Amino acid sequence: MSTTHAEGSVKVAVIGVGLVGTEFVNQLLSFPSPSPFRLVALQSSKKLLSNPDGLLELTLSNWKGTFDQTKEMENLPKTAEEKRDQLHRCIKGLSKLVKLGQRVVLVDNTSDEIVAGSYPVALGYGIDVITPNKKAFSGSAALYSDILCVASNGSGAEFLNESTVGAGLPIISTLKGLVGTGDKIRKIEGVFSGTMSYIFNKFSTGEAGGDNFSEVVFEAKKAGYTEPDPREDLNGADVARKLTILYRTIISHAVDPQSLKDSELLVEGFKEVNPFSLVPEGLESVSLQDFMDGLPKSDAKFSKTREDAAKDGKVLRYVGVVDLTDPSKPVIKAGLEQYPKNHAFATSLQGSDNIIMFHTERYGGRPLIVQGAGAGAAVTAMGVMSDLLKLA
Amino acid sequence: MSTTHAEGSVKVAVIGVGLVGTEFVNQLLSFPSPSPFRLVALQSSKKLLSNPDGLLELTLSNWKGTFDQTKEMENLPKTAEEKRDQLHRCIKGLSKLVKLGQRVVLVDNTSDEIVAGSYPVALGYGIDVITPNKKAFSGSAALYSDILCVASNGSGAEFLNESTVGAGLPIISTLKGLVGTGDKIRKIEGVFSGTMSYIFNKFSTGEAGGDNFSEVVFEAKKAGYTEPDPREDLNGADVARKLTILYRTIISHAVDPQSLKDSELLVEGFKEVNPFSLVPEGLESVSLQDFMDGLPKSDAKFSKTREDAAKDGKVLRYVGVVDLTDPSKPVIKAGLEQYPKNHAFATSLQGSDNIIMFHTERYGGRPLIVQGAGAGAAVTAMGVMSDLLKLA
Repeated sequence: MSTTHAEGSVKVAVIGVGLVGTEFVNQLLSFPSPSPFRLVALQSSKKLLSNPDGLLELTLSNWKGTFDQTKEMENLPKTAEEKRDQLHRCIKGLSKLVKLGQRVVLVDNTSDEIVAGSYPVALGYGIDVITPNKKAFSGSAALYSDILCVASNGSGAEFLNESTVGAGLPIISTLKGLVGTGDKIRKIEGVFSGTMSYIFNKFSTGEAGGDNFSEVVFEAKKAGYTEPDPREDLNGADVARKLTILYRTIISHAVDPQSLKDSELLVEGFKEVNPFSLVPEGLESVSLQDFMDGLPKSDAKFSKTREDAAKDGKVLRYVGVVDLTDPSKPVIKAGLEQYPKNHAFATSLQGSDNIIMFHTERYGGRPLIVQGAGAGAAVTAMGVMSDLLKLA
Repeated sequence: MSTTHAEGSVKVAVIGVGLVGTEFVNQLLSFPSPSPFRLVALQSSKKLLSNPDGLLELTLSNWKGTFDQTKEMENLPKTAEEKRDQLHRCIKGLSKLVKLGQRVVLVDNTSDEIVAGSYPVALGYGIDVITPNKKAFSGSAALYSDILCVASNGSGAEFLNESTVGAGLPIISTLKGLVGTGDKIRKIEGVFSGTMSYIFNKFSTGEAGGDNFSEVVFEAKKAGYTEPDPREDLNGADVARKLTILYRTIISHAVDPQSLKDSELLVEGFKEVNPFSLVPEGLESVSLQDFMDGLPKSDAKFSKTREDAAKDGKVLRYVGVVDLTDPSKPVIKAGLEQYPKNHAFATSLQGSDNIIMFHTERYGGRPLIVQGAGAGAAVTAMGVMSDLLKLA
């Protein structure tokens, strides 16, 4: 393994070594020598491997074993405040490399709110941030404004978040290209949740009959397509977060950005979107088992909706929309919609694919469409890695 | 108009002021002050407006008039050699800005072979090159190797060519993201020609009958969807050029690039692809009028092909393929193929849209798909502008 190019390389600190994190480190360490990248820190919730001097001697074949054998941190941070402090100390450590003129990137592969809250600190030190973590960009406008502000205030650091929407699909970069060059977004509509895609591609094919809703949900859970608690998918919050990110990307990347007052960035973030929830009333807060036991009671209702749609030659899809037809009255919504059987949402969607349509001024009557797997560790990590390549 | 930020801005020299060039300059000059970009030169085949000091005082409202009133160059270059010399003098002039530490980008909005041949010179001086011009990337491997070599040899200059395939659609950038992060391309297949898309979306809908082939071609010509001489679309050369660009992008952007011998980069470029030509035999070299008069004689043959396809429930599409299923035996081909009526090439294509499917290792059974208008001045210029934003 060569260390000779360590000086010229981009220094990468990784937080989160779960499915996506593991796949990301594998991709990062697959570059042949001399690699443009250099891993300088690797942190999970309990372990930290770091050496800001750039001498972390990890390879594709030994990193996982080395990390597994690393001892847990002493004084493991327990409270949110302790976690924040530990994180800030780490980031401060990395900032020494920036002062030495090196490019340092923090890659957050967690879905942690506290890590997300630390982006302004990292950016302020001149450390770039790349992440599939939706929390910072879909949460409070205060945090999002902070990030925008620090990133544009001359530290030279950038944040990139391609994988927050559609995993490795080119959604955020396409949107930035459109609005950044002066195109006007009229409407973005799409199937943004791989889980919802899977469920409704099975549940609603245009026929009046078919499997019960609960059966399809249980099958999706069994096949690993839902969160351990399927309500986290069915409540629409994930879609609401993605729509918030898209809307804010439009606002903040336009050629002539409108005033970026918090009020225009959705003060409360995704909580303002109010997605239509598919979790039956009364089952929102019960135990997982009670939810599973209770879901079949709503099957008749879902079947009726499917039957009504089928009578009109339509299918049901759980769709997210950012509608800027009247830019002064943006409409951001997520819910169950009906589409004709010959619509792309009906004909060309398969499995757990995402499909996103960009209706814009320049693309006129026919939208720009991106479609493909929108979830999964390999493609999510690829979106992160692809962002990293843009910085190198 | 503010000139205060001229020093920190990216300096842009534009060659080509046709449809795409005009739209590009409009987009470039639409940035509110302080713009990150500064137009330093504007050149057509006969005129040159330049001021490398960065004081070209053009605005969105006055640039076209100013350029129209600019006198033609004295000693207008006539031979290819004179043109090349004039171009090299211009590029040398721009290189002075690079020596002063400024970032300079040459934007080639022509489809000129001589301008394409000058990219290595510009890159060698540290001037970035951005262009929708396919010539350099689909021509001889010698020129393409030169470009790769100069761009990677430390001048710091980059070339970006998103608009050479699919206009503003994210095709090249998506492909770079895939192969650059280690994904393996199995096959790329798509409808790459807006003209061919328009013609076959009309000609072959899955029904046995319909308008004659020549009628559809003439109508497309009348509506401005073909080149003035439709043979330039029908011969498949444009698709062959795009496939050459995609194939070379795969080879040269892979994480672990194979040896970049000219032989592996297609020595003769698109000429090695041998696309299936729809220009009937004997009409290749006759006058445009004779071609138009002669085309209807082939209608029966095209109708028969359509009828045979319809019998099998299929439609005809002119499709380009880069097949790397066996990486040691790459297959690059373009021609008329049959697709089932429920295939995306049949159901979701409309108008003159492009559709491109990336079959890769990570995207497994279902491809990543990009679809939308793949031609037109506004979206082509947007692709160029979007590349420029990546450099800013």
